[in-house]
Amino acid sequence: MATQGQVITCKAAVAYEPNKPLVIEDVQVAPPQAGEVRIKILFTALCHTDAYTWSGKDPEGLFPCILGHEAAGIVESVGEGVTEVQPGDHVIPCYQAECRECKFCKSGKTNLCGKVRTATGAGVMMNDRQSRFSINGKPIYHFMGTSTFSQYTVVHDVSVAKIDPQAPLDKVCLLGCGVATGLGAVWNTAKVEPGAIVAIFGLGTVGLAVAEGAKTAGASRIIGVDIDSKKFDVAKNFGVTEFVNPKDYDKPIQQVLVDLTDGGVDYSFECIGNVSVMRAALECCHKGWGTSVIIGVAASGQEISTRPFQLVTGRVWKGTAFGGFKSRSQVPWLVDKYMKKVNVICIEFIFEFVALAVVYRNSFDLTGNQN
Amino acid sequence: MATQGQVITCKAAVAYEPNKPLVIEDVQVAPPQAGEVRIKILFTALCHTDAYTWSGKDPEGLFPCILGHEAAGIVESVGEGVTEVQPGDHVIPCYQAECRECKFCKSGKTNLCGKVRTATGAGVMMNDRQSRFSINGKPIYHFMGTSTFSQYTVVHDVSVAKIDPQAPLDKVCLLGCGVATGLGAVWNTAKVEPGAIVAIFGLGTVGLAVAEGAKTAGASRIIGVDIDSKKFDVAKNFGVTEFVNPKDYDKPIQQVLVDLTDGGVDYSFECIGNVSVMRAALECCHKGWGTSVIIGVAASGQEISTRPFQLVTGRVWKGTAFGGFKSRSQVPWLVDKYMKKVNVICIEFIFEFVALAVVYRNSFDLTGNQN
Repeated sequence: MATQGQVITCKAAVAYEPNKPLVIEDVQVAPPQAGEVRIKILFTALCHTDAYTWSGKDPEGLFPCILGHEAAGIVESVGEGVTEVQPGDHVIPCYQAECRECKFCKSGKTNLCGKVRTATGAGVMMNDRQSRFSINGKPIYHFMGTSTFSQYTVVHDVSVAKIDPQAPLDKVCLLGCGVATGLGAVWNTAKVEPGAIVAIFGLGTVGLAVAEGAKTAGASRIIGVDIDSKKFDVAKNFGVTEFVNPKDYDKPIQQVLVDLTDGGVDYSFECIGNVSVMRAALECCHKGWGTSVIIGVAASGQEISTRPFQLVTGRVWKGTAFGGFKSRSQVPWLVDKYMKKVNVICIEFIFEFVALAVVYRNSFDLTGNQN
Repeated sequence: MATQGQVITCKAAVAYEPNKPLVIEDVQVAPPQAGEVRIKILFTALCHTDAYTWSGKDPEGLFPCILGHEAAGIVESVGEGVTEVQPGDHVIPCYQAECRECKFCKSGKTNLCGKVRTATGAGVMMNDRQSRFSINGKPIYHFMGTSTFSQYTVVHDVSVAKIDPQAPLDKVCLLGCGVATGLGAVWNTAKVEPGAIVAIFGLGTVGLAVAEGAKTAGASRIIGVDIDSKKFDVAKNFGVTEFVNPKDYDKPIQQVLVDLTDGGVDYSFECIGNVSVMRAALECCHKGWGTSVIIGVAASGQEISTRPFQLVTGRVWKGTAFGGFKSRSQVPWLVDKYMKKVNVICIEFIFEFVALAVVYRNSFDLTGNQN
């Protein structure tokens, strides 16, 4: 492309300070260095994690920065040594890298690649510990190694999933975070089996994706728990079979669920980020085998707690990041699953109802502002 | 036997009040009713759980009672409908029942049989919700469904493991609780694999049994953590390869272990019952896959806590009761393993060093006081 090797000036939403409106600015995006990929972002969604860092409550948040991590686009150019993608490839940038070489990737036990983490956590690129974004020479930090609130971004090659070029980017961008996380929490982390009873705390996008995953896995009962009863109609479309609003009960919600299920659920999922709800999600699990998976991200410094007897009597407390999916290997597989409409019966609904379900998460069309 | 169907008067150690010396009394032990077994106890050990209830800190403790749950003996008589054991069988009474019929037993996911729990928790037998122990007509509560601090006891038939009559009862009595719990925590709950790095918090009998189990499972490093460095020499005999005394460090013990192991251990075991140590045991686990198993029983009302990020980044928090072993089915298997000296390489050491290792747990010979 004509822009290869050149600095690109394009529009981006810059977060100058916590909790202040993002400012649409002309930013300079440097060419990708060795092992880096510059992507033209066509669609990006807004996830709660973006809002959390923007709010200033994330002690690791760096400003000024360009937020955004749930997106899809097309490779514009690649740096030296990049072999797995080339200009024109359709891609999803992944905040969770997959290098296939580090201790984590080789373990076969986790998706938490550690290769570029020290750089992405510091808002820079590994090669020179510098940002590729600047405004009139002043650097702007990267965010989560993705920074998709920009028409162009630069990411590490280990963070790029090449996908089917036929896939609609305005929809599959959600597989860059929320939907993949929910599905993976069920399939990879909890490994829900046919006939299982499942409780989902929080029916936002992640919770609905959990419902979808549980339905696909053959769960016999999928109990949605939310303080907003209006979400139930939408949730039905994703497989939720029963709805419980904690506001309708005087007793603790964990006791409500234990009573409803003859002893507790087989699997529970916390999709909010509230430490009290995380406790309830554990304690509504069945003695002997119930497994609770934390998906929501709690505010800094907050802690979970319970009586150890809950674990000694057989409950298991787990968590998941990006649903346990290995990003470069499995995001393309998720896109294929979506394209083939195989197994993921209602995934289309997730995209259609997402605006209803989650205040924060919407898909933004950046194509109208192309340079 | 001549005593069949008769009330037996024998010696028992009665706990009349919390924290007061046990009193050796003549107690009357009623004949077993339907589904019950009367056992002549030949050897019993003293476990921390006996001491805990005796101390008065267990809110579910009932007095007066006959404590004891780690023992071995010979069936004296059986009640109606008991088919799996008969007078003369050598047995280990098991505080964790196994009925093979309840939801728990049939689940294939847990050893926590629920059949007689409501009775054993209330210090009585299921049949008539009464005790079989009395002194001059005044009932004495059962404890944990076993009450082995008595020359004769009555237990539910689902709580009796029939073992090899050649097995030395003074040794295999320990398979009724501590040793089975430690071995099972490794083999059943954590499923430690060859090459794994293991940390053990607390080198009492349970901790030493965990070391033995981890060595048998092929762990590459077994790190013993205890504030009493004198235990290290004994612990070496059970497979502990490294010793860490938290008193030797200024930084938190979880950080010491993370630094020693390039990121954390694969499996950790809490064998004390201290909620602060439970947290350390979780947090010394490796990001992405480290699993921590709580074995120790904390005091009533105490809670564990941690940042949820510990779980979201892949650590797993579990617990175990009786090491996940199904009592009637697997205690005989453990006894066989001991008799054949197969795999359990050093189990003999557990019995030889137990007096050194644990203050509370000693094997008491009741044979000298036979009626």
